Amino acid sequence: MSKSIFYHAGCPVCVNAEQEILSLIDKSQVEVVHLGETRNRIDEAEKAGIKSVPALLTPTGNVLHLNFGASMADVKG
Amino acid sequence: MSKSIFYHAGCPVCVNAEQEILSLIDKSQVEVVHLGETRNRIDEAEKAGIKSVPALLTPTGNVLHLNFGASMADVKG
Repeated sequence: MSKSIFYHAGCPVCVNAEQEILSLIDKSQVEVVHLGETRNRIDEAEKAGIKSVPALLTPTGNVLHLNFGASMADVKG
Repeated sequence: MSKSIFYHAGCPVCVNAEQEILSLIDKSQVEVVHLGETRNRIDEAEKAGIKSVPALLTPTGNVLHLNFGASMADVKG
């Protein structure tokens, strides 16, 4: 895995964090995943250790939870 | 302000987040501030909206709290 993955759910906190992350990190190095729209990736996100969104899964497999938009329970609805 | 500022306090969560951030963002674009050692910058951090460390203050003035290491109250001791 060489790219980071930015997981979000379209919440206002998510949108702000996405703008900041994409201005700081080379866009070609970040995959953006909207878990509200791409629900079949919720499982993968949880297995990677995502507890809330927005969050950045780094190429080393670490998770950086960025502020707090919504819990994964909220995302799963 | 064109650089980001990464505020931390030397905690394990801080050290992990610092390694990730410095691997993702050009090091020349990030100032790293250890608030435990540079206590005269605690005021500035709080005014910028830092509530806990580690946190990244972006060039646009937004704060990204990264996971949770310690509250500013803990940092101030």
